[in-house]
Amino acid sequence: MRLRGKKGIRENLEAQKDLVVLDPKQYKGRWAELFGNDRPIYVELGMGKGQFISGMSIKYPNINFIGIDMYDELIRRASEKARAVWNEQEEGVTPPNVKLALTNIEQIEEVFAPNEIERIFLNFSDPWPKARHARRRLTHPRFLARYKEILNERGEIHFKTDSQTLFEFSLNSFADFGLQMTNISLNLHRDGINEEHVMTEYESKFVGQGMNIHRCEVIVGEEALRNYEMSRLNKYK
Amino acid sequence: MRLRGKKGIRENLEAQKDLVVLDPKQYKGRWAELFGNDRPIYVELGMGKGQFISGMSIKYPNINFIGIDMYDELIRRASEKARAVWNEQEEGVTPPNVKLALTNIEQIEEVFAPNEIERIFLNFSDPWPKARHARRRLTHPRFLARYKEILNERGEIHFKTDSQTLFEFSLNSFADFGLQMTNISLNLHRDGINEEHVMTEYESKFVGQGMNIHRCEVIVGEEALRNYEMSRLNKYK
Repeated sequence: MRLRGKKGIRENLEAQKDLVVLDPKQYKGRWAELFGNDRPIYVELGMGKGQFISGMSIKYPNINFIGIDMYDELIRRASEKARAVWNEQEEGVTPPNVKLALTNIEQIEEVFAPNEIERIFLNFSDPWPKARHARRRLTHPRFLARYKEILNERGEIHFKTDSQTLFEFSLNSFADFGLQMTNISLNLHRDGINEEHVMTEYESKFVGQGMNIHRCEVIVGEEALRNYEMSRLNKYK
Repeated sequence: MRLRGKKGIRENLEAQKDLVVLDPKQYKGRWAELFGNDRPIYVELGMGKGQFISGMSIKYPNINFIGIDMYDELIRRASEKARAVWNEQEEGVTPPNVKLALTNIEQIEEVFAPNEIERIFLNFSDPWPKARHARRRLTHPRFLARYKEILNERGEIHFKTDSQTLFEFSLNSFADFGLQMTNISLNLHRDGINEEHVMTEYESKFVGQGMNIHRCEVIVGEEALRNYEMSRLNKYK
């Protein structure tokens, strides 16, 4: 399928029903049905051009990934990226474990039912540096309350950002919201590129120029919390 | 009292019984008696040359401060500093709310009884950067367990460091130990010198040269935790 061309972006997206979901609210509570299996669902909120979610979908074929963004153009670019990485594996294949959903994150609880998803990725979210815009930051407690609702018992939030101020705000927000943090990093690529984590476009572009990446994981679900509590006993010798 | 001179350091310290405690273990459970009042006791573990504890003792005259270090020479320098700042207020006065105690922090629970102190300051502690020395870091869980023992129901730990790696380790250690963090800052003097917090020698020397200070508070005591939980509800609007 050739995606670039003179067609309007919306027309392009409408022609990609195998990958792009323009009306995601209708799948609330039915995403497993759409994927055709009961595998865990990981969601990236604000996927941008889709490098991260595409890379993750290849690295973890037994996970279903949903990339969320609110701009048609980003959905289009992410769709090209997802097809490109999967077509390296098999010419013409539809990425089997990826959906790209057009939605405003403010409406996230209209898109997912309680306990429907297992992980949320927040990568390089807008830092909204002005104090009066703090409520718009995707790690503000008003969002955390929503995430908690839609995440299941194994739910986690994985967050990374280059913004020192957003990371600082977020650590405090997670702490104030009573969430358990783990694997906090103030410089993810301190010892050279950390290959363990799939990089975003932005990250792979700037990290070589010395951009400092902050990252942490937040344990939300009760089963995830129990597993974490078992493991932390063995962390310090 | 003239402290500089040709006398040996130990002799100098022995002559300062009003301020310096060379045998702190004998005051375990009796520090209030030594101060002559029941005011809260705040302890700085590793006070260095004493600028912080001296400044704090002036700023908070209704708190009793104990500065801990393991080197005679640092106790001597801190004693000069404490006398100097108090003598600016009243010539020849003994700092009324300060004691400087010679001890190894490894023996902290032999110096303080359970619930005897209300706050611990850790300022620019040795980062012990090698992984095999992680146990020596003063924010390692093995120390946190001791701090929890000697802190009272209003107990808190206030920690600052310029070391990105020590701060990262410490955030994870606090989180893994199940302690509530608050007021996390990744750049304490981001908007110019933060006058709210008394600076250490090290800090005031290097912060003008762009040194990045990380800071956080850790809520340990149950009453402190209840107060914090009441206040955090009003933090985000």
